[in-house]
Order: sequence, then structure tokens, then C-alpha cells
Amino acid sequence: MQQSEAGILREIPLRVVLVSPRNPLNIGAVARAMSNFGLPHLRLVNPYDVAFQEARSAVRAHYILEQAQVFDNVSSAVADCALVVGTTAVGHRDLHLPLYPLEAAGELLNQHLASSPAALLFGSEKFGLSNDDMSHCQWLLRIPTRAEHGSMNLGQAVAICLYELRRNAEAAHTRFDSPELASAENYELITSALLDVLTRSGYVNERTSQSTELKVRRLVRRLGMPASDVETWRGMLRQILWKVKQPQQE
Amino acid sequence: MQQSEAGILREIPLRVVLVSPRNPLNIGAVARAMSNFGLPHLRLVNPYDVAFQEARSAVRAHYILEQAQVFDNVSSAVADCALVVGTTAVGHRDLHLPLYPLEAAGELLNQHLASSPAALLFGSEKFGLSNDDMSHCQWLLRIPTRAEHGSMNLGQAVAICLYELRRNAEAAHTRFDSPELASAENYELITSALLDVLTRSGYVNERTSQSTELKVRRLVRRLGMPASDVETWRGMLRQILWKVKQPQQE
Repeated sequence: MQQSEAGILREIPLRVVLVSPRNPLNIGAVARAMSNFGLPHLRLVNPYDVAFQEARSAVRAHYILEQAQVFDNVSSAVADCALVVGTTAVGHRDLHLPLYPLEAAGELLNQHLASSPAALLFGSEKFGLSNDDMSHCQWLLRIPTRAEHGSMNLGQAVAICLYELRRNAEAAHTRFDSPELASAENYELITSALLDVLTRSGYVNERTSQSTELKVRRLVRRLGMPASDVETWRGMLRQILWKVKQPQQE
Repeated sequence: MQQSEAGILREIPLRVVLVSPRNPLNIGAVARAMSNFGLPHLRLVNPYDVAFQEARSAVRAHYILEQAQVFDNVSSAVADCALVVGTTAVGHRDLHLPLYPLEAAGELLNQHLASSPAALLFGSEKFGLSNDDMSHCQWLLRIPTRAEHGSMNLGQAVAICLYELRRNAEAAHTRFDSPELASAENYELITSALLDVLTRSGYVNERTSQSTELKVRRLVRRLGMPASDVETWRGMLRQILWKVKQPQQE
């Protein structure tokens, strides 16, 4: 599986997901860092087309950009991932999500990657990840930059995260034997079923339905549900939905 | 001295030295990463003037580029540094210098930085550091990238090195109490005096004098001489030089 030569480690099932990247140089720099550290799975959500085409001409990163997958939304970009981690430069915001410094985050990610795929999300150069993007995440990580100038260049932020993952990958590899966890697609199915139930139950009202959806998605994401339990949960929710749809006796 | 808040550590006396950088975007990216990690001392050796001027317009890195010092040669750029470390993407070359992976190198650098200033040298985007540049270094570091694609983007390489230094700076800070070591300027004075002696002694011949100079500089650099011993060594060399200059009796 794993070779001792520095930098030639086992294949890590990590997907690097760039949400709405604008700058072709950044996309190219991300691909180059992925090639440097041997992490080939790049995904882009709504990239600016021109930027993506320009980036494809980047030196020595062709194969990563050629294999890169493009998606319309975060949900489908992380569908096969059991763990979804967001990155942020902001230390204190009303995030509703656990926030770890990169070193601890790298260890958690590596523990997870030993058994299941994961996605690492980076927001656009200008705005970072939106609250909606973050609602797809179980937790967030932050590179420990200075408070006075926290925001990093996208290509540099990705490079540092991949370096840190590779650095402690060897140590973390054999330590854990975790059950495979539910994928993001599984979580979405459950979130959706639960929202149906909540709407039918009158828990969700028209005015606040969007913020409730985010809250519910986060709730579900925090479950850490084993993949083998997903069908049982879905069956229960189907049954509940059937019940709440029944015409009410007055 | 040191605060526990992530990223707000003590001032580290590290000089980041870019040798012949060509690309203004890279210079700007380096300055941005230095600002992110709170390491303000940037030095440039023979930068392309246009590149440097363009870089000065980079967003949110003004103060680092404004304070940046420009030098004609590596020797003067590292004159006040007791330790000079080069970076390389090449694992195996006839380097004549110890080569450490970044994690070990970061620890060694931090041990040193607790008592004395140090320089970290990055070569040009196209060629890296030359053998001549490396002859000013005591040792080299390498970021553990894949053998198949080892060469990193300059801005990303600097960012990763600074991240790694900051990561373990806190732990290393109070552990060591080393004597202050000779500066690069001291080493140059000794190298120069020793070369005079060697030339006068017939050790150095015209044909091979340049490669001998590199060899001698490396020899001196490996000494790890305490700063307080420098004058004694120079005095001895002066005396030797006086002696070898005496006309020979036949």
C-alpha cells in the first residue's frame, strides 16, 4: 500500500472541490499542487468557463485538469463523499459548525480517509464559501494565519492543506479501523425526506423554510451515520411521511 | 514574547531570500504568504526590475514589498545571517550538502532562530538555486513532493515552508539555549582569508580556482563556528598569510 519514500504514499480518496473559482492561474496552481502531492481528484462547482479553459493549458498539470469533473452544485460534487470539510479564513462567525486548525483537521481527515472518501471544499477567491456551501459540511478547517491578514491565496491555501495531509498521512494510516460512513448523497436523501416530513408536519413554514433547510442539513451531517444504517433510516422516514400525509380527522 | 493565539507568535528573525525571481505574480504571492504568517523580512537578489515593480502593486502585501531589500548577490543578501538554508526540488544531485525534508528542516531552523537570524533561499522559477548560490548554504531542505513531479510553484513552496515553520515554532521556542553562531559575513571573511592563504600556498591553481572557492566556502560553512571565535580565527589566518607571503630562501 504505502511506500516509505517521501511523497510516494498510498492513494488518498480525497476530492479537492473548488466552488466558483474565477482565476485560471489559481485553478492551474491548485492542479499543480495536487500533482506535486499525488492527489489527483479535482472537482469544480460552477467555474467560470473561460477560467477553466485557460487553466487547462497550465504546465505539467494536464492530466489533473483533464480528469477534473465539473458540477452545477455542491450537493452533486460531494455526493459520493462520507465526509465534507469546508475551509475558511474567518475565525469567528456564526458558523454552527465545529472549526479546527489545520493540524488537528489533517489528523481527523486522515483518520476518515483510511476508510471512506472525503471532500475538501474551497470557496471562491473573493467570497470564500457561502453559508449554503457550508451547510453541506460536517465541519470546517482554518489555516493558522495571522488575525490581521487571514485570507490566503487559493493556490497557496490548497498547497498547504495537501502538504499537511501528506505530512501526517503515514502515521495515521494504520491506526484506525472505522466503519464506512454515510455518503453526502445518503445524507441528502435523508435531509430531503426529513424536510418533507417537517413541512407536512407544519414545522417548516413558508417564510423561514430556506434557513430551516440549512439547519436540518447541518443536523443530519453531524450524525456521523454508518453507511449500513442509511436504508433503515430512509424506511422509517418514508413510513412517517406516509403517516403525516394522511387526511386529518376534525 | 509569545502568544498562544494561533498565528500570532513571536517575531521570527527569518529572512526569505528570492534569487533572481522573474514573475511578478510569484513575488506578490510570496509577500502575501509572508503577511499571512507574520514573517516580514523579504530580500531579493537580482530580481527582474519590471517584475518587482509590478509585484509592488499586489493587494494587501504593500508593506512587505515596500520594506523588501534588493541585493546584487547572495553573499550580501545573507551577510547578517548565521544560518543560510537553500531549498531544492531535486532529491539526488552531487550537492555536497546535507539535505533534510521540510519537517526536520523546520525544527532545525526553529532551533537556530531561537538565538540567531537565518536566511531561507529560493531559486528562480526556471532554474532553482545554482551551485554557486548553494555554496552560501550550510544545508538544504526539500518539500516532500512526488518524485515524478517534484518542482513546485515558487509562491506555493514559500507558503508551505512558512506554514511548517509557524506550525512547530511554539514547541521549539523555549527548548534551546544555543550560543550565537558566526554570521554569513563572518564566514565570508574567513573564507576569503583562507583562500588567500591557500593561493599563496600553491594549494589553489589558476585552472581550478573557481571550484576550489566553492569547496572552501562549503567547508567553512559546515564549521558552525561560534560568533565569539571569529576574530581569533581571523587573527590566526592573518598571521599565516603574513608568513606565506614572506620571500622564500632558496
